[in-house]
Amino acid sequence: MELEDLPTPLRLCAGTDGSVTFLLEALTRKPVEVVTQHQDVVKADSKMAGLLGIETGQEVNQRAVILKAGGITYAYASSLAPLQHMPPKVREDLMRADIPIGKILRNHRLETRRDVSKIEVLGTSDYFGSKPVLSREYRIFFKDKILMWINEVFPIDERWNL
Amino acid sequence: MELEDLPTPLRLCAGTDGSVTFLLEALTRKPVEVVTQHQDVVKADSKMAGLLGIETGQEVNQRAVILKAGGITYAYASSLAPLQHMPPKVREDLMRADIPIGKILRNHRLETRRDVSKIEVLGTSDYFGSKPVLSREYRIFFKDKILMWINEVFPIDERWNL
Repeated sequence: MELEDLPTPLRLCAGTDGSVTFLLEALTRKPVEVVTQHQDVVKADSKMAGLLGIETGQEVNQRAVILKAGGITYAYASSLAPLQHMPPKVREDLMRADIPIGKILRNHRLETRRDVSKIEVLGTSDYFGSKPVLSREYRIFFKDKILMWINEVFPIDERWNL
Repeated sequence: MELEDLPTPLRLCAGTDGSVTFLLEALTRKPVEVVTQHQDVVKADSKMAGLLGIETGQEVNQRAVILKAGGITYAYASSLAPLQHMPPKVREDLMRADIPIGKILRNHRLETRRDVSKIEVLGTSDYFGSKPVLSREYRIFFKDKILMWINEVFPIDERWNL
């Protein structure tokens, strides 16, 4: 399946340079609920270090959430955030969890840049099993360092007939 | 007319914290053309100075463009940008015109923050005459100063049945 064949709501989520939470709220006309699946501080392995531009062994907040609206899950989002680059108050909000990233950045009035590095259609994924998904990866830059690496996965099915 | 009664594409444009050009390209599945209506450098009057947080008399780039896709006009956007806060290379691109703001910011890898200050439905507007429009105003912050004030106006009619 090519990206241009996806339903419009999914193409919007795939390509936006803004907040996916906002898009989902506008598309579904319902509030989005962020449900944390897990959240831990880990030491960066070499793969994480490469993704984040840090040294191995540095502390990284690893979080996974699902985004739900009206009881339906629209996305699974996992993120890696190096703690050393993060303003302390942002760190607190991120660890309190259940707050969408876009809202955290806005609340703290951070000036950032989003850089989408990969958009692809996959046949399987950890969260949605053998259902095809749209997967995208992007990084949020703050003061020229990577504040966060994010992978969002959207199931491709009839739930997008909004 | 209330905001929640608007067609979904218009609600998306009204509320996005990302680029409207990108949204229009995804919604119409066509490239967006930016057509400059006028572009001048002027001295700030007191109204401009208030909007931009600068002194009267300072230089401001005043630009108006329409955003078209597939021959149809989807938005009229006017902007005010104080020149003193602007990196010189960004200024060049802005004056060369016909480049969407979102693309200019991305090309120069600027870290910014968007702050939507007003969203309203109006019965008339300068560009679309007596057609009802959705109008929104927002400011783009860069290094804690206002880089740009933008007013986007979208006609409310059947062109959004996409």
